[in-house]
Amino acid sequence: MAAVARLSLNQATIKRATVVEAVEGCVRHGIESIGLWREPVADHGLERTAKLVADAGLRVSSLCRGGLLTALDNRAALDDNRRAIDEASALRTDTLVMVVGGVAGDKDLIGARQRVADAIAELSGYAAEAGVTLALEPMHPVFCADRGVLSTLAQALDIAEKHESVGVVVDALHVWWDPDVDAQIARAGALIASYQVCDWLTPVPADVLLGRGYPGDGSIDLDRLTRQVAATGYARDVEVEIFNADIWAADFDDVIEEVARRYHSIVEPAL
Amino acid sequence: MAAVARLSLNQATIKRATVVEAVEGCVRHGIESIGLWREPVADHGLERTAKLVADAGLRVSSLCRGGLLTALDNRAALDDNRRAIDEASALRTDTLVMVVGGVAGDKDLIGARQRVADAIAELSGYAAEAGVTLALEPMHPVFCADRGVLSTLAQALDIAEKHESVGVVVDALHVWWDPDVDAQIARAGALIASYQVCDWLTPVPADVLLGRGYPGDGSIDLDRLTRQVAATGYARDVEVEIFNADIWAADFDDVIEEVARRYHSIVEPAL
Repeated sequence: MAAVARLSLNQATIKRATVVEAVEGCVRHGIESIGLWREPVADHGLERTAKLVADAGLRVSSLCRGGLLTALDNRAALDDNRRAIDEASALRTDTLVMVVGGVAGDKDLIGARQRVADAIAELSGYAAEAGVTLALEPMHPVFCADRGVLSTLAQALDIAEKHESVGVVVDALHVWWDPDVDAQIARAGALIASYQVCDWLTPVPADVLLGRGYPGDGSIDLDRLTRQVAATGYARDVEVEIFNADIWAADFDDVIEEVARRYHSIVEPAL
Repeated sequence: MAAVARLSLNQATIKRATVVEAVEGCVRHGIESIGLWREPVADHGLERTAKLVADAGLRVSSLCRGGLLTALDNRAALDDNRRAIDEASALRTDTLVMVVGGVAGDKDLIGARQRVADAIAELSGYAAEAGVTLALEPMHPVFCADRGVLSTLAQALDIAEKHESVGVVVDALHVWWDPDVDAQIARAGALIASYQVCDWLTPVPADVLLGRGYPGDGSIDLDRLTRQVAATGYARDVEVEIFNADIWAADFDDVIEEVARRYHSIVEPAL
């Protein structure tokens, strides 16, 4: 059990599961922490979910997701992000994962990135009051057009360093290719709000969003990357977050068992 | 005609065409330059192709591709690259496009990148004697695992600046997302051996390699990017290189006409 003490199961890894099934699965496998998503939480009810995870004795390592701030008019998105901050607070997690949004129809990537920076500046105070860190997730450039215009850890840190209650997510899948990743992880230090692991599969499957595998099944040197993160003093939970059609189709218990096994053999020794 | 004077048709855009069909298509549409690939050239014969393009009055803007230098034992690859340099010389092009190769089975990305740097150092003299520039193509990070471990223009320039007869390819698809792209294009200056255009389509299709569209059909601000390249004094040909299953299935003449139209309306005004 001790070897998975810092493992958090991101519920997207067992996407078909309800929050009840996900929480019960964690408890059954000795996993002490869970990463939640807003939609399944809403399905079960916010307060009911908060009570469910508290009664189960689980930590909530993060809530996913805020963000989507790149529209030319993002006022509705700002309101939605304030709601997401409130939800994170209700769930007693200090980390809201921010997927910032893709390029708008005007193709102005620089403008889209600036709107993200401006929106984070506007949301930072609200997040600080709620005790929630906005965890900016730099996304692999394959998602730059349609999901996240922050493409590097350096960009996310440029914003995070300017504001209170703003940090970054280091997701192995999103950052592993970056020639500057070592230096930026060291720079990030205590600003790393969440470290997430999975692996990069080749060939990339038909839906590039689902090109994630269990740690160890792909091209990422997770031992090396995890040691870089650990060297910053990172002492929080490590989420396993896998989007993969085959894994989503599998039995929840089998998946959770495999997640724990991979975490134990590949991630935990490097922490 | 003048408006497409610097347009080069990369023959991969009409992948099913033989070199004869590709050359005839260029001539029919007033295109004065062509980018060739080694396999179809070999099918027609190297010397015959050299004579074909010379008789047609075409420039050969580049030969694709050398590279694949990341294997733990890359001696065979070095020999193959020397042959590719010879072929470029025989085709009277000064530009060999280098797709450097992906991560090896050991998952050591830093090691793979170092092998590329070492191999380019070894090939540089041979290329210089042949009058051929090794044009390092930084590739979109979606290809880092299996095609190209140079993920940014900065990385390619770090190598190119150290050796004679080594330059870089600026392919819009590969560099558009890079937050540092403006600075790196300016830094590249005369080291830009080839500027290539197409567009980034979303959603990414089932084969990510084929996620390219005609200029104007995707998320890239090609006007802005082209102006950055032009500002360096770039005066060479501009290749349109599109990997796209629908375009490959279409009539060659229709494709070439559309390529010329997009080049004329989107690229040429920014040069």
